[in-house]
Formats: sequence, C-alpha cells, structure tokens
Amino acid sequence: MQFTSSTRLDDGVLEREFTLGEIPGTLWTPGSWTPGSASVPLVLMAHNNGLPKADPRLVARARYTAARGYAVATIDAAGCGDRPRSAADEQVRADLRRAVRAGEPVDEIMESLVGPLVDNAVPEWRTTLDALLELPGVGGPVGYSGGWAALGIRLAVAEPRIAAAGLFAGGYVPRAQREEARQLTVPLLFLLQWDDEGNPRQRALQLFEAFGSKEKTLHANPGGHTGTPWFELEDGCRFLDRHLKQRGPSHPVAARAGS
Amino acid sequence: MQFTSSTRLDDGVLEREFTLGEIPGTLWTPGSWTPGSASVPLVLMAHNNGLPKADPRLVARARYTAARGYAVATIDAAGCGDRPRSAADEQVRADLRRAVRAGEPVDEIMESLVGPLVDNAVPEWRTTLDALLELPGVGGPVGYSGGWAALGIRLAVAEPRIAAAGLFAGGYVPRAQREEARQLTVPLLFLLQWDDEGNPRQRALQLFEAFGSKEKTLHANPGGHTGTPWFELEDGCRFLDRHLKQRGPSHPVAARAGS
Repeated sequence: MQFTSSTRLDDGVLEREFTLGEIPGTLWTPGSWTPGSASVPLVLMAHNNGLPKADPRLVARARYTAARGYAVATIDAAGCGDRPRSAADEQVRADLRRAVRAGEPVDEIMESLVGPLVDNAVPEWRTTLDALLELPGVGGPVGYSGGWAALGIRLAVAEPRIAAAGLFAGGYVPRAQREEARQLTVPLLFLLQWDDEGNPRQRALQLFEAFGSKEKTLHANPGGHTGTPWFELEDGCRFLDRHLKQRGPSHPVAARAGS
Repeated sequence: MQFTSSTRLDDGVLEREFTLGEIPGTLWTPGSWTPGSASVPLVLMAHNNGLPKADPRLVARARYTAARGYAVATIDAAGCGDRPRSAADEQVRADLRRAVRAGEPVDEIMESLVGPLVDNAVPEWRTTLDALLELPGVGGPVGYSGGWAALGIRLAVAEPRIAAAGLFAGGYVPRAQREEARQLTVPLLFLLQWDDEGNPRQRALQLFEAFGSKEKTLHANPGGHTGTPWFELEDGCRFLDRHLKQRGPSHPVAARAGS
C-alpha cells in the first residue's frame, strides 16, 4: 500500500489517498490518531454500484465517521469510479440509459450490470482489507457501512473479519445477494428511504425479512433516494459504536427495559 | 395537584406520587433537578390500553428518560390501572378473554374496548398536562412517549403543546385513531416489533404510511411484543433531545450529508 497524498481537513481528520496495485483508495483517520496510537476500528465504506470514491456524499459520511473515532477506507474497485470498463460493461450501461429514457423495466439490465460489478469488486475489497489491517494503529473489529447494499451483503457473508454492517436499501440487489442475505448473521442496520422512486419498498422490506442476523434494525424515513435525514448518520455511528467499540447501555435501567 | 409521596431512587431520580382530583399519577424528575432549576422539558408516558402506571416496563422507561434530563409523568386515567370500571367495560374485557381463549378474531372487541378507553383518557391527560406545566421547573416543549399509540395519536392531534411523539406500534389502534393519524403532524418515532404476534405488521406499516408528519421515522426490530432491544430506549431519548432540547447535528458534515 502506497500513500500518494495526505491532507489535514478542517475537522482534524487526516485524508490520505493510496494505491494498492491497480486499486486506488482513500483512508480517513481521526484527528487525534497517529500511527503509534492504540488501534481504531476500521470501517469499509462503498458507494452504490461503483460510483466514484470521490462522490461528495460518500466523502461526507466517511469524514463524519472518522471524526467519531474510526479509520474509514474506500476504494474504486474494478469497473468502478474512473477505472477502465470492458466493452460488455459499456454496452450494459448504454442499454440501461436507453431503457430508463424509454421508461422500460430495468430489473434484468440491473441484474447484468450489478451482478458482475459485485463479483469483481469483492476480491479487491478483501485484498484492501488485508493491507489496511497491516497498518499500525488500524485494527479490528471491522465494520461495513455503505450505500452499496449488494456489495455489503456479499462481503459480510464472505469475510469473517466483518463484525457489523450498515446497509442502505436504495439500490439494486441482485438475486444472488438476495439469497445470500439469509446467510448474513452479523448485527445489521438497514436504512430505507420510504419513497425511493427507483427502489420498490416491498422488495426492501422482503430483504429486511430475509437477513439471517439475530440483531437487525430497520430505519425508514419518508422521502426519495437522496433524502436521508442527517440524524441517520449519527444513528449509524452509534450502531457501529455498539458493535465495534462494545458500547453497552449508558444507564443500568436500559439493560432491563423492554417495550 | 397534591404530592403524596417522594422517593429518591438509586440513580438520583426523584419519584413522586400525586393525585389530581380523582386522577392518580407519578412524576419523575432528574437527580440534579430542584423546583428552582431551569425548566426541564416534560414527557408524558402512557402504558398500553390502561395497564397500571406501576407496570415495571413503564417505570423503567420513565426512570431512564428522567435520568436523561426530563420531567416524566404518567397517570392512571379513567378506567385504567386500579380505577373503577363500568359494568360495560367489565363485560367487554370478559368478551375479550373468552375470544382469545377460543382463538376467535378480536378486532371488533378491541374496537369497543380501546375506543372508549381513549375517549375517556384524553380529557384527564389534558387536565394533568395543565397542572404539570404550572409546576416550577417543569416546562415546554412537551413530548409524548408511550406504549399506547392510540392515546398518543389522539393527544398529539388534539393538544398543540405536544411537540414530538414516540409511539410503540404494538397495540390495537381503533379506526378513529387510524383516521386521525393523517392529522398528526409533529415529528414522530414509530417503534415496531417485526414479529409481534397479536399486532399485524402490515397494519403497522399502513399506519406509518398514514401519519401526516413530515419527519417520521420507523424503527423495526425482530422479535415479539415485549422484545424491544435496549438501544431503542436510548434512540427514543435522542429523538426527544432533538425536538425538545433542540439538539442539532454534532458535526458540521452531518448537516450536509444525505444518503
């Protein structure tokens, strides 16, 4: 892993670009962190369907999470961001644009777009995870928090080092990952935009039902795909705190207070 | 309002029993609070369908919430707790027990049980609210947080002093309150147990859809009626903090970070 740039942001967070072979990535660490610090837990964060790692919404979430005491990493995996795409990939994306313009159903096209994207991305995320955990001051347990639910499902099922997953429901989840959801057993926070135009609510609720995790929580808010309220960012970090920092109830009564 | 007893609990919370005419109630205030303190926001807390105000689950939630900086009040409204019931009330409850034993549908019986309970409880809750807000050191804005969703809907619609409502989905909501839900406009946290045996999930999701509030959030967790995880108690208080203590984002990035 080669660091190629380093920027101290105004909230103290250190933002570093890196390359790992062909894989470009970004690592954010808390302001108080140094390589000699006690390890901070690692959070892998991916934006949906290969959107670039520099997308401002992903960067904002990553910085916020880092400021809360995490090392946060993202990459542009194969076929994602600015990385080269195969002719077949380009064709599927052209088909998708045409179908969207024509108002035609896109499920089968999404299936052939997102399925291979996930298949190709997962090995690169795992290679990156290996390298990140060798850095001094970056440790386990590891969380996944991302807009890309399909990648998160596959990663959390395949990768025993991932101890908790925060997933955004707003994105196409291929049939393979809908099946794999049953094998996902880590604690889960599943975030749904109730009126997400392109993502049927019923399908998201079925996916929530399918997850094999004993601890799984659905948070749903009204509004469209990009309308997630700010407080869900805080809630997402508190979910990570509970599972990656072992934060229990802050008051003895909470431990014994059900509904 | 007459205070009839006063107990300092081990977490510092002051628990006081009171009567207001025929209405018995309990008020919890934070350990640091005195009548001369700056006002703490008031939270009204009701248990479902007239269960007694001394129910341990309600008391645990009330104490936790008080320890987080709220004045929390509950009452046994007319027909609730140990208060006398009419012969008609007793008959409906007998019908309900018989129907449950026989495995028969209970919707119509619940309608004739809960409808009048809500109708009779609301004026007493409003009278209590008037009296509570006259106490030194107890102020607005006021929240409702309770297992009794039907009462909360009616109160929050009828009572302009209520600024936020946390409702538990697990309880029968009469047709009148399902209609009134459309008129409810205050920020709302709606807590659903995904596998609540006696309360159909689809009906709860329809109720969430119906609420007129621009800010409404559904939290759903697996498990039965009494299986709500402890962290929802903390989430419920943070929801109140946002609306009754005007707590905004803790980090500038949160304010501009959508999904």
